[in-house]
Amino acid sequence: MAYGLLKGKRGIISGALDENSIAWKVALKAKEEGATFTLTNAPIAMRMGAINQLAESCEAEIIPADATSVEDLENLYSKSIETLGGKIDFVLHSIGMSPNIRKGRDYGHLNYDWYVKSLDVSALSLHKMLHVAEKLDAINEWGSVVGLSYIAAQRSYPFYTDMADAKAVLESIARNYGFRYGKAKNVRVNTISQSPTRTTAGSGIGGFESFYAFADKMSPLGNASAEDCASYVITLFSDLTRMVTMQNLFHDGGYSSTGISEELMQMIQQQQQ
Amino acid sequence: MAYGLLKGKRGIISGALDENSIAWKVALKAKEEGATFTLTNAPIAMRMGAINQLAESCEAEIIPADATSVEDLENLYSKSIETLGGKIDFVLHSIGMSPNIRKGRDYGHLNYDWYVKSLDVSALSLHKMLHVAEKLDAINEWGSVVGLSYIAAQRSYPFYTDMADAKAVLESIARNYGFRYGKAKNVRVNTISQSPTRTTAGSGIGGFESFYAFADKMSPLGNASAEDCASYVITLFSDLTRMVTMQNLFHDGGYSSTGISEELMQMIQQQQQ
Amino acid sequence: MAYGLLKGKRGIISGALDENSIAWKVALKAKEEGATFTLTNAPIAMRMGAINQLAESCEAEIIPADATSVEDLENLYSKSIETLGGKIDFVLHSIGMSPNIRKGRDYGHLNYDWYVKSLDVSALSLHKMLHVAEKLDAINEWGSVVGLSYIAAQRSYPFYTDMADAKAVLESIARNYGFRYGKAKNVRVNTISQSPTRTTAGSGIGGFESFYAFADKMSPLGNASAEDCASYVITLFSDLTRMVTMQNLFHDGGYSSTGISEELMQMIQQQQQ
Amino acid sequence: MAYGLLKGKRGIISGALDENSIAWKVALKAKEEGATFTLTNAPIAMRMGAINQLAESCEAEIIPADATSVEDLENLYSKSIETLGGKIDFVLHSIGMSPNIRKGRDYGHLNYDWYVKSLDVSALSLHKMLHVAEKLDAINEWGSVVGLSYIAAQRSYPFYTDMADAKAVLESIARNYGFRYGKAKNVRVNTISQSPTRTTAGSGIGGFESFYAFADKMSPLGNASAEDCASYVITLFSDLTRMVTMQNLFHDGGYSSTGISEELMQMIQQQQQ
Repeated sequence: MAYGLLKGKRGIISGALDENSIAWKVALKAKEEGATFTLTNAPIAMRMGAINQLAESCEAEIIPADATSVEDLENLYSKSIETLGGKIDFVLHSIGMSPNIRKGRDYGHLNYDWYVKSLDVSALSLHKMLHVAEKLDAINEWGSVVGLSYIAAQRSYPFYTDMADAKAVLESIARNYGFRYGKAKNVRVNTISQSPTRTTAGSGIGGFESFYAFADKMSPLGNASAEDCASYVITLFSDLTRMVTMQNLFHDGGYSSTGISEELMQMIQQQQQ
Repeated sequence: MAYGLLKGKRGIISGALDENSIAWKVALKAKEEGATFTLTNAPIAMRMGAINQLAESCEAEIIPADATSVEDLENLYSKSIETLGGKIDFVLHSIGMSPNIRKGRDYGHLNYDWYVKSLDVSALSLHKMLHVAEKLDAINEWGSVVGLSYIAAQRSYPFYTDMADAKAVLESIARNYGFRYGKAKNVRVNTISQSPTRTTAGSGIGGFESFYAFADKMSPLGNASAEDCASYVITLFSDLTRMVTMQNLFHDGGYSSTGISEELMQMIQQQQQ
Repeated sequence: MAYGLLKGKRGIISGALDENSIAWKVALKAKEEGATFTLTNAPIAMRMGAINQLAESCEAEIIPADATSVEDLENLYSKSIETLGGKIDFVLHSIGMSPNIRKGRDYGHLNYDWYVKSLDVSALSLHKMLHVAEKLDAINEWGSVVGLSYIAAQRSYPFYTDMADAKAVLESIARNYGFRYGKAKNVRVNTISQSPTRTTAGSGIGGFESFYAFADKMSPLGNASAEDCASYVITLFSDLTRMVTMQNLFHDGGYSSTGISEELMQMIQQQQQ
Repeated sequence: MAYGLLKGKRGIISGALDENSIAWKVALKAKEEGATFTLTNAPIAMRMGAINQLAESCEAEIIPADATSVEDLENLYSKSIETLGGKIDFVLHSIGMSPNIRKGRDYGHLNYDWYVKSLDVSALSLHKMLHVAEKLDAINEWGSVVGLSYIAAQRSYPFYTDMADAKAVLESIARNYGFRYGKAKNVRVNTISQSPTRTTAGSGIGGFESFYAFADKMSPLGNASAEDCASYVITLFSDLTRMVTMQNLFHDGGYSSTGISEELMQMIQQQQQ
């Protein structure tokens, strides 16, 4: 069902790799809700992705950009404004990558160059997206920027290694740049802390299925899907949430506020017998 | 602007005292967004309020109820379902009252009977609203219940006295009943932690204007108004936020995540000279 | 091992029921560390308890007091000051009781009179202890008051029912009265959020053993024992923590900051096969 | 007053630049409490510092180390163990530096190479200290590692620029490595979030005095001094806090839990007139 929540709004959506991506679902919903936008991804990611198909169904232009490159981001905003015919109203930051996870390094044996790479790609890129936007005055007053995070920024999940630290920085940048950009132009910046999601990126993490099941058993509403997340993102892009900023918003079926569920207690009871 | 976000939804809205009330604005917006609902308030509050006028413009029936009375709440749900022609989709809990504040008692000199009264009216009433709803199976699957809170539940504001403790209980009840009702019927329960708001209730608190100015200077977007809050409540009643539950959501222009602003620093600098 | 951390300090320790009580261990350690103190408990609890034995080994007087009674508390402070020969330096609030838990009522079927009783005994009693202390000027400058809490104040644990709300109020009172008493007399007030502990009270909660095992598997250091907790309390009574106030301090082997442990992941994996 | 809390314990204390440093006070107190330890600092910082004088009065050896260099840290642990005659029981991480702050870059105009430098020196160095310790098995069971943080990791303070993000990473590393090292060897890792402190480093931040005054007016106990902080650190190094881990502990006179104080309200009232 569509409401026209984003009618007339222009945006930039990063991170749509394939149809499992949260960003992919956000693009489809944003289109339904009346927005026009550009799609962006790292040149490398795009080669693997099916992003052309998405672009077509959304009538969106693709503008490749390495989100760690200020120059690429300048190009992204300039081209987006040109293509869309005006300044930007919303930006989705859905970018994350850890070479340490890819290469199976655990948290006690990180490669520190890769660690910096994880932070640069997954977190610092948000700072750069905001810095460039501010410099070019590319975002309209009351624009909305959303980044995707995970509760590993607050609690330790051994398998998540350096991405936990990266998400902590991401949320910190949202707060700190949110203050600045709010003051300057009433632009709001928030992160959504999403349930574990069966995206191509998520599933690559070791033990993902066990953890997915754990979170699902813990959450009274079960894990939130990528599609649910897209709906929530739309509300944050809309004009109905203009005074929400510098927040990390849990979108997780209640997981973050649950200590234990009956199902987990039963599992433990069985094990103890 | 209206989107039809609540088309076909039925609700109960408590706490609309006069046109400054957040609940009043929620009612107007809910109407615009296509909902039908009943209005409720304590019999005493209603005598002073202009609620009839609101009821008329919203085509809503008024069902008086003392929110501390399980019987009254049973009647509220039964009548609402009857009047609206089906089970309830959303409930706004906007109820708070502290005899200690009214009588000017500071936190060190509380009357303990009044303290219990503050908790009963301002917090326990949410438990009762949820308990009765569950008992009567009065809320549809994926229904949404929202209570209004304040950051005094996390940090100390001397003038807020026992309402601070009441808000802490309110948020706790939202979490705990949210778990239960989520598990049982996928009903979600959240609180919104709102900026200080110039409602009739709010303005009655001693030193309100100073504090209002402080929060406004601190928040990069300024204080959120009652009308802004109503818009946010609508998103939480809508189907776009179905996986958000057991959360306390700050709606405050960034206040809660701000340590200090330049304006406050300048004020202090001037004072030091 | 003893250090003399509380040499010359006078205190009041509530809640020592039997040798499994945290308060019992605190009394023994406080004695070792050089403090003199009085013991107190509700008249009813004392009949069942072995508190006389503790009193003897600590050379402490017992002053029965119903912590919900302002009069009893006035007597408690007056007699303690008289007996100990001077004003009080530290107070342990270790008081909690839920008739709803005792009678097996779940969170959806609370008896509301009992609910108020739970809050009165388990939380409001802390307010009363602080109010009476302030009124009588019974606590020395830089005195320290500690209450015992549980993480159910932040996250939902179904079996904990209304005690979760009571702990939320307890922590709120610690913050709010901590502000007031800090300003007035530099008295500090904190709560310790302790691991599930095999006390007589704790073990009475349904499903306690399963939950105890869950928390133990989650925490990298395992669950903290009553004796560990007593050591921690001593540091908060000492002069080494004089600037810590209005805090809720997790003493839980790392549980509160852990999202999942390898052991839990393995348990889930086995279940899935 | 000394208690012998660290009798027989061996430690490493980083970051003692001059007598205003928190680390300097920690060293003096650790000595008083019976510990032996080595001192370390970056070679550059040492040239400016008065660390030799401290070393003499503490009978401590100085082992220069660039905390961003794994090799230097290997040398630090090996030499410390050799000098002290056994494995390490406690480590103080008091290391922070932001080229962006030094050069007056605001948060919207960061030099990104310097940003990475800020994170590397101020946060990643804690990971490296823990990684090297674990690799060399240099820390005894139940050892304690403490890092110094600041509330800018939770709330935005415009003048603190990229150090806010660095502290967010620091606290994240404490949690994540705390989990790992706790599981492996019962080593605990915590951060202390300290009041603004008139150290040589702190005072260098623009607007420091205004902010210091603001925090002092907000905190019911006033700002915590470097010496107070040292006392608190000692409790965390002692055996009395063995089950506290993965925590960020506010040591701030109540600041973090205070929303507003009467003094600030008065200041605002005056300004409004």
